Amino acid sequence: MTSEKSHFPILGFLVICSMMIQISAKYEYQTKYLDVPLDHFTYVNETVTFKMRYLVNDTYNSDGKGPILFYTGNEGDIENFAQNTGFMWEIAPKLKASLVFAEHRYYGKTLPFGNASYDSPKHLGYLTSEQALADFADLLAEINPSNRSSRGRPVIAFGGSYGGMLAAWFRMKYPHLVTGAIASSAPIRQFDTDCGVFSQILTSVFSVSYTKECSVNIANSWDVLKNYSSTADGLKVLKDKFKFCGNITKAEDITGTFFDYLTDVYGNLAMINYPYNSSFLAPVPAYPVREFCGRLAQNFTGMELIGRLQEALSIYSNYTGQTKCLNIANAYDDNMGTSGWDFQSCTEMWMPMCSEGSGKDMFPKKPWDEKKFSDDCFKQFGVRPKKNAALTAYGGLHLDGASNIVFSNGLMDPWSGGGVLRSSNNAIKIVLIPEGAHHIDLRAADENDPGSVRGARQVHLQNIQMWIKQYRKRLHG
Amino acid sequence: MTSEKSHFPILGFLVICSMMIQISAKYEYQTKYLDVPLDHFTYVNETVTFKMRYLVNDTYNSDGKGPILFYTGNEGDIENFAQNTGFMWEIAPKLKASLVFAEHRYYGKTLPFGNASYDSPKHLGYLTSEQALADFADLLAEINPSNRSSRGRPVIAFGGSYGGMLAAWFRMKYPHLVTGAIASSAPIRQFDTDCGVFSQILTSVFSVSYTKECSVNIANSWDVLKNYSSTADGLKVLKDKFKFCGNITKAEDITGTFFDYLTDVYGNLAMINYPYNSSFLAPVPAYPVREFCGRLAQNFTGMELIGRLQEALSIYSNYTGQTKCLNIANAYDDNMGTSGWDFQSCTEMWMPMCSEGSGKDMFPKKPWDEKKFSDDCFKQFGVRPKKNAALTAYGGLHLDGASNIVFSNGLMDPWSGGGVLRSSNNAIKIVLIPEGAHHIDLRAADENDPGSVRGARQVHLQNIQMWIKQYRKRLHG
Repeated sequence: MTSEKSHFPILGFLVICSMMIQISAKYEYQTKYLDVPLDHFTYVNETVTFKMRYLVNDTYNSDGKGPILFYTGNEGDIENFAQNTGFMWEIAPKLKASLVFAEHRYYGKTLPFGNASYDSPKHLGYLTSEQALADFADLLAEINPSNRSSRGRPVIAFGGSYGGMLAAWFRMKYPHLVTGAIASSAPIRQFDTDCGVFSQILTSVFSVSYTKECSVNIANSWDVLKNYSSTADGLKVLKDKFKFCGNITKAEDITGTFFDYLTDVYGNLAMINYPYNSSFLAPVPAYPVREFCGRLAQNFTGMELIGRLQEALSIYSNYTGQTKCLNIANAYDDNMGTSGWDFQSCTEMWMPMCSEGSGKDMFPKKPWDEKKFSDDCFKQFGVRPKKNAALTAYGGLHLDGASNIVFSNGLMDPWSGGGVLRSSNNAIKIVLIPEGAHHIDLRAADENDPGSVRGARQVHLQNIQMWIKQYRKRLHG
Repeated sequence: MTSEKSHFPILGFLVICSMMIQISAKYEYQTKYLDVPLDHFTYVNETVTFKMRYLVNDTYNSDGKGPILFYTGNEGDIENFAQNTGFMWEIAPKLKASLVFAEHRYYGKTLPFGNASYDSPKHLGYLTSEQALADFADLLAEINPSNRSSRGRPVIAFGGSYGGMLAAWFRMKYPHLVTGAIASSAPIRQFDTDCGVFSQILTSVFSVSYTKECSVNIANSWDVLKNYSSTADGLKVLKDKFKFCGNITKAEDITGTFFDYLTDVYGNLAMINYPYNSSFLAPVPAYPVREFCGRLAQNFTGMELIGRLQEALSIYSNYTGQTKCLNIANAYDDNMGTSGWDFQSCTEMWMPMCSEGSGKDMFPKKPWDEKKFSDDCFKQFGVRPKKNAALTAYGGLHLDGASNIVFSNGLMDPWSGGGVLRSSNNAIKIVLIPEGAHHIDLRAADENDPGSVRGARQVHLQNIQMWIKQYRKRLHG
């Protein structure tokens, strides 16, 4: 469904990983729950609450007055974000900070209606970013109370991807609760940008990572695959070559499902193109795009192209060598996490995506089809997108009134096209990471990190320290 | 009900006037309607909309590029605010501005469920400040569209009292839509201040306006009235003296209903203590507190005190001389407007009020009774107050992250105790009007205005012009 709608992993990708991958428990925390209102903005059922999960580590807050580093959870299990946001853990001791990771409603274990949370629009309708931010605000009001005679501890919000959007918006909407925000790879301009930007950046990443031929091969592969898909024999050839798990019986299994799968994989590879082995979305080697493109480094055609593509793909689909078959149908299966993001993209998170083909990008031409997108949403969820909702609520790129936010973007991240890359507001800081993939700066430091990533983390820390200092000065000044 | 709960006119006063008084049509405008969602923050019934009324005057916007002066309607008929906010009309020609007055949901003609809007919690539950602000945001997105390639016209929000709170919050929550805000007599700190501040300021106003004896007489009157109310004969004496419209059959009609009425009248008199005849809450002469206190200028006792009190009261209750009887029961009758504010004060607009008596203020001792307040709310509306809702949502006095707001307060306004009277944030401007009553600076200029009111309006205009200039500089810079 996701891929039908946009053929891009509209940020929903983060969920998949938490479903697919064992979360490695590098960092430790307490798991807690807070009762929050199902609906913060009406009094129709004002007594209905649910349990929001959050994770806390207070080890470093030795004097009880340190700042709170607060991760604004996005579309997935919060434990995965806690384990993959090493930067917060690394700066906490220096800042004597507490760590808090708050889970976004309708993801992980934070299910307002339990297992029935996704079973009808009546239940799912409370899944919005505004409600999630209000949950986070209630949590801060609870754990960090503030009143006219005593002010709470300074709070720094962190988030990557949709979580980065939430971190920025949390500071913008609740500046009395949030002192500053590090918003990494947060495409808050994606609501109002060219639909083809994502495809173009992606193409560029696959062009420069090894040889130019990589993106040319990908661009040529669609027609080759399509040709094979047009006959039963051809379908069998593809089935044998790629070792699909399910049956491949018609052309659309290739030109629909498999094309979408490939598109998602290319997007994911670019996002997790980290300089070290990682398992955030899938277990992959260091610089997986380079590895991928190394297998497509010359101009291939026909069956050889298909063979090389299959080999390259295994970087992502079978790096461990333990995958028996290629599951293309279930990559966006209807599990809770992806349904959640699908619902959000069908309501307020309306981010048009398209590709132009014809040399402008490496994808088949696929114009943005607003009507089909809306109809699909209505079919699946009984809702239609509110096209301008996010822009009206949050302002898109218009950040004149905002302050104390760092927007960081890796320029090799396809989402950077929707990111904030410049600012005419002194209180909004921009960090560009030329070699960076998706929110790499929030990950734990690694000896293979390029200088720009190390530099980004230094700038983050400097800003955080400045915000905390300003906050304390106001308290005592 | 209102008075039972707090014995102060918790801002609900504005509604009464629109019910009681013919709105004089000094200013002209077009009346328009916009369909807005019943619920901006869920997708449970996302297709349900209603018609929000708004008033527009485009006469002065000669080049089509002028700013928009936007009144954030509060708890009453928007036409009354349009007619009583002369300041906006007076600066519009100079700024070549459009004027827009947006009606708050559930007041005036903006009734989401028509005549059934107030008939059940299911209908009334959508009455919140956040939903109202989102209505206003939708209206601006509609009449002043902005996107990445073209930015809309600058917008300045205006409001007095609860409307001033909304104007400030509108800038704080939607700075991309609102360039700056003039928040007059906006008690945004009232959620987190001493419950007795209102009574104390009120007492001070009645002490200094003529002679000190005025507040002493009021302080003494409660016991005298109570004594008369304890016998049937005494009740008859009071009935004859005050010419109550309804029957007075028991002590509580005096110590309950009439005490509440008097308390409301004293609050209203101070709020509308303007230096000229006015009819905002009731037709009254210039400086009505002075007029009132002129009739209580010496120390009176017993029946003479009652007689003088009745005479003084007529300044408010019968200045036109056409009132046949004194309607104390219906001052806060269950009409839509007051019910609306009662509901808001029973949910998020939780403003504890109390009086201490014993010389500290001129009222009978009445501690804040949180439990009774909550129980009364539950009885009337089936809801209980969310004590910290407004503080969590808007931050109370913590305005570090806010900008481009002027908070103005008349220091003779009892609401100034909850107002923002100082700022350590350069982008938040404070205007104090020593002689000022409730949002006098938003009213039309009058030859009797004291210098501080004229000065306040000049400061407002300077700030507005500065904000507009900055906005345009950013656009073209």
